[in-house]
Amino acid sequence: MVSEKMKPFMANNSAIRAMFEEGKKMAAVYGAENVYDFSLGNPNVPVPEVNEAILEIVKEEAFNALHGYMSNAGFEDVRQTIAQSINERFGTSFSEKNLIMTVGAASGLNVILKSILNPGDQVIVFAPYFVEYDGYVRNYDGEVVRISPDTETFMPKLDEFEEKITKRTKAVIINNPNNPTGVVYGEDTIKALAAILEKKEKEFGISILLISDEPYRELAYGVEVPYVTKYYHNTVVGYSYSKSLSIPGERIGYLVIPDEVDESGELITAASIANRVLGCVNAPSLIQKVIHYCIRHKVTVNVEAYEKNRDLLYHALKEDGFTCAKPDGAFYLFVKSPVADEKEFCETAKKHHVLMVPGSSFACPGYVRIAYCVSHEQIERSLPAFREIAREYGLLK
Amino acid sequence: MVSEKMKPFMANNSAIRAMFEEGKKMAAVYGAENVYDFSLGNPNVPVPEVNEAILEIVKEEAFNALHGYMSNAGFEDVRQTIAQSINERFGTSFSEKNLIMTVGAASGLNVILKSILNPGDQVIVFAPYFVEYDGYVRNYDGEVVRISPDTETFMPKLDEFEEKITKRTKAVIINNPNNPTGVVYGEDTIKALAAILEKKEKEFGISILLISDEPYRELAYGVEVPYVTKYYHNTVVGYSYSKSLSIPGERIGYLVIPDEVDESGELITAASIANRVLGCVNAPSLIQKVIHYCIRHKVTVNVEAYEKNRDLLYHALKEDGFTCAKPDGAFYLFVKSPVADEKEFCETAKKHHVLMVPGSSFACPGYVRIAYCVSHEQIERSLPAFREIAREYGLLK
Repeated sequence: MVSEKMKPFMANNSAIRAMFEEGKKMAAVYGAENVYDFSLGNPNVPVPEVNEAILEIVKEEAFNALHGYMSNAGFEDVRQTIAQSINERFGTSFSEKNLIMTVGAASGLNVILKSILNPGDQVIVFAPYFVEYDGYVRNYDGEVVRISPDTETFMPKLDEFEEKITKRTKAVIINNPNNPTGVVYGEDTIKALAAILEKKEKEFGISILLISDEPYRELAYGVEVPYVTKYYHNTVVGYSYSKSLSIPGERIGYLVIPDEVDESGELITAASIANRVLGCVNAPSLIQKVIHYCIRHKVTVNVEAYEKNRDLLYHALKEDGFTCAKPDGAFYLFVKSPVADEKEFCETAKKHHVLMVPGSSFACPGYVRIAYCVSHEQIERSLPAFREIAREYGLLK
Repeated sequence: MVSEKMKPFMANNSAIRAMFEEGKKMAAVYGAENVYDFSLGNPNVPVPEVNEAILEIVKEEAFNALHGYMSNAGFEDVRQTIAQSINERFGTSFSEKNLIMTVGAASGLNVILKSILNPGDQVIVFAPYFVEYDGYVRNYDGEVVRISPDTETFMPKLDEFEEKITKRTKAVIINNPNNPTGVVYGEDTIKALAAILEKKEKEFGISILLISDEPYRELAYGVEVPYVTKYYHNTVVGYSYSKSLSIPGERIGYLVIPDEVDESGELITAASIANRVLGCVNAPSLIQKVIHYCIRHKVTVNVEAYEKNRDLLYHALKEDGFTCAKPDGAFYLFVKSPVADEKEFCETAKKHHVLMVPGSSFACPGYVRIAYCVSHEQIERSLPAFREIAREYGLLK
């Protein structure tokens, strides 16, 4: 009954999701307070203004206008407000036409990839990366080309990138700030990346779309996250409010397709249609209005809470003898496994009720991802378990 | 920049959506009260309990549990409540495992088609039908096989159906109550359809999935809508709350995959993964909880309002000399065009500020669809325009 294309997905089902389901089972057995689940990027910092927005909107807006169909690209006023907000913050000049509201960033990526990919087109990604990208690309018969990880800095290996661009390269996906490493690509990196893309576009006479996946844009700890459309003409930005408003279950985000993109008008039309034909039809309507409210009321998540978590866990793990690059953004630590097979390390950690995700799920074996978007108390409670694990591996002198 | 696969979508973009956009422009020019937009199935009957549900849920539930990630298939308690409700109403025996919450029925159809279709697999549909199905099937490289319309009764032509089933038939889509005709397939029709499918499954040694798309199930005027899983083992139901709670913008529905379906366990797993990999990840979380509330509080839409609209418009059009089958469900009239080219008829109607959708958008030229999910007043105001149109075509004696 199941299609051939779905079978590989079933064989390699998301380790993150499997861990999430396992965490729920373990919590039922041992009690939630005794399981240290660092598996899923499920934000824990509430943004109460989201609820205030919902209450106000439901009371004030007419029922059918609020819950009814609108254009497939989303409410015009919502898109206009978002465009203005981006323009004010980053000096861009988008209008509502450049914005398409999507069912989260994951759906936005699907929409843009469906809009551009022909079978066999190559999409370049930089390891480590969110391997769901592989599925999104395969959905449209594209081929993922991986750039190997620079495990010193976790910045993109630009030499290898330049070598691997071919005539079949249709798109490049970057994720900034990065999941799973938390590193932030600065202006120099983006400029260098753009220069390579421009050179290769000329060399091969092709258009290469740079897709910047930015759900963690607002979660940066004192560093600038460059707005990529300003550095490279063929850039599309995928955004999500999952992390910046702590509402991943609500599925709301957008695509920005600038006028500077080749055949921009056609691409915008294609993306609006793809949004409909893939079955989303439009992003959820009430939550679109919530975004409108939150922008007008300058609502932001408490980034300091995540920074405090990072500091506590990062320093504790360093003291325990673990190796880890200090992240500048997102809410992940990417820790070197003390043994080559990081899945074994994860299994050992699980015995101590610590759940983390193997790096092989990010095309970077030998590392594990720890999502610290949990309560500060969970981190505090988990520290003795991490210390035990460090002892078991002889990391503590 | 745009993929080859998207180009046909752009060339044949939804006439319904084009009309919807045109309606908005005309309303801006002539005033909303002077434009009779019958183009889109955008329900107009508010369901205030939906807003009560939202207010209560937002006040009572913890922020992160309410707005955070859950299993890709949706909240377990929500699925359990829906399964129970179906069981009570239709004598089935589903559990939460048989339910997958989806981003509306359109996404549910994409999820199930992605889960089953191999390139070249055939999917049978009965004209007239919602031609977005064509896009959903093409998304996964399937081939749509159309059964021609029976323009007397608009019931499925079962002889032609039986003839057109081949070894490559993977699925059949029915839509009951039907968009665009409003007819309801009764028990005899479903039984006859099931008998043909069972016979052909045996003859070819294949599994054929019957996909019953049921967003209009609750909108039936005094007739029974059979629950199809009881009549044929390989049935999947796609449901949406868009019409039954008047919330199409919120994108909420579900798939039912019964245990009786061949390889049911694998198909359920595949569909959960497809929901994630297509980018939806999960159905919007707050609205999932709203469904839970509405089922427990037995909330329903005021079907009588639509029935009143149907009666007013149906009788007026008959009096004007138009030909139309009286619909038993949904909120559409499918009216015979007084001239062979129904697009010309639509253009004429537009001059009278009446917007309706050509039947060619439903694979049934020579007819037009009128969506009467508008205010009763709009219908009353539009009647002189319909009378004018009837006069123009010499229908009024």
